[in-house]
Amino acid sequence: MAKRKSARPAQRHAQPAGVWLYGGHAVLAALNNPARTCRRLLLAAESRPRWAESVDHARHTRPPAAPALPAVDVVERREIARLLPEGAVHQDIAVLAAPLAQPALADVVDTLSPGSPAAVVLLDQVTDPQNAGAVLRSAAAFGAAAVVTTQRNAPAESGALAKAASGGLEHVAMPREVNLARAISDLQDAGFRALGLAGEAHATLPAETGEQRTALVLGAEGAGLRRLTRERVDRLVRIPAAGPLPALNVANAASVALYETIGRRGEG
Amino acid sequence: MAKRKSARPAQRHAQPAGVWLYGGHAVLAALNNPARTCRRLLLAAESRPRWAESVDHARHTRPPAAPALPAVDVVERREIARLLPEGAVHQDIAVLAAPLAQPALADVVDTLSPGSPAAVVLLDQVTDPQNAGAVLRSAAAFGAAAVVTTQRNAPAESGALAKAASGGLEHVAMPREVNLARAISDLQDAGFRALGLAGEAHATLPAETGEQRTALVLGAEGAGLRRLTRERVDRLVRIPAAGPLPALNVANAASVALYETIGRRGEG
Repeated sequence: MAKRKSARPAQRHAQPAGVWLYGGHAVLAALNNPARTCRRLLLAAESRPRWAESVDHARHTRPPAAPALPAVDVVERREIARLLPEGAVHQDIAVLAAPLAQPALADVVDTLSPGSPAAVVLLDQVTDPQNAGAVLRSAAAFGAAAVVTTQRNAPAESGALAKAASGGLEHVAMPREVNLARAISDLQDAGFRALGLAGEAHATLPAETGEQRTALVLGAEGAGLRRLTRERVDRLVRIPAAGPLPALNVANAASVALYETIGRRGEG
Repeated sequence: MAKRKSARPAQRHAQPAGVWLYGGHAVLAALNNPARTCRRLLLAAESRPRWAESVDHARHTRPPAAPALPAVDVVERREIARLLPEGAVHQDIAVLAAPLAQPALADVVDTLSPGSPAAVVLLDQVTDPQNAGAVLRSAAAFGAAAVVTTQRNAPAESGALAKAASGGLEHVAMPREVNLARAISDLQDAGFRALGLAGEAHATLPAETGEQRTALVLGAEGAGLRRLTRERVDRLVRIPAAGPLPALNVANAASVALYETIGRRGEG
């Protein structure tokens, strides 16, 4: 695909709808995602050499059927900062993208191969985008099938979430379900064993993970899992950790749980 | 200990030496650490009810031999913000503390009981305080004996590090060694098996962790382990993770490695 010259009119008042993603990993992953529609791509002049090759690579390897990438707008660094939340660590690169169309959980489950280990993470009222993003990153590293949130009390797709996910947002489905307890039931019907992570549980994670399909349900720090969530899971489990601090953060807990359920066993 | 009225003179130009710690978990953990000297304790007026009880509890349970806690200074929120780095999420509570006197690695090893599983984490040029702090948090959750850094190219004790550690800084020794390869040798002499985490390793973490004492060596994201570090460890191992993103962040990797080496086996 030839590099086009920017034809962007100076439309300050008619900003196209979308979400600004920023930071090298998040932006390059978006550019390399054929399902992602990108509307504007900004580089700060001083960092053009740092990113140009990766951006060109994304452009040249993009499938013809994917929405075309916009031309690069080389701008002043402060122009990028102006468009982003205060303090955003943007590394001189940002892209205005249409939010991803996320599949329903049922559709994700339908694509799973019946004989292989699979894990799905469900977040119960984890509202912090940094935490949810960090969970996405771990989910992408271990190959989880999805990170499920509720439609309410869950972070929307945002630059902060994408930055924390470090590219994971482009690789892991993020279904937004109306009702988390119902989503757990649906997964159980599809052969998943649902484990709710709770620090006070008697059962431990390694003792309870033998099934082919595991749903891992994590709550927000402090609040933990809601009552209905606790009642719906097959078992509450804790991560065995005997140190002086009571709890891991939610992203670390998700990493450990994904390691136990699909990382370790992948090595047969 | 009776609550004292603040007798602080308005010494803007003679700020006592120390490091400002902020955020509820980090500050309360410092107040509850008998080894910690605290010089000033600030609460924003609007959040006094939120923190007063925990602060009083720390004061009343502090051992008589520990350095006394300062009286609470109730100040305006912007006064706290003014003393901290821009954008610091302080939750209306901050303490000016003397940096902790950290033990030498050899002294930490001397305190370990010979028959019990133990893990030490070593950070090879992990300069980001958020990452190092997050590793401390996981180390405190799993009961690691120490998080070892080098004297150079490692974050100093800071508010950002303490905040990310969420109290872990008060619970885990953080020896600063001149030479990391030498520290690895010393640990090997003390019966530790040294595992270097490297994404491209053939051996996997679960296959290589059977020893009673394990040293886990992690490098910075991107850069990884230095050559001398790689040569010194007993084995390079990777965390089995078959997903589309290549790597966990260093804190998640540390969590998984600590879980495998001392979390899981603690359950016998």
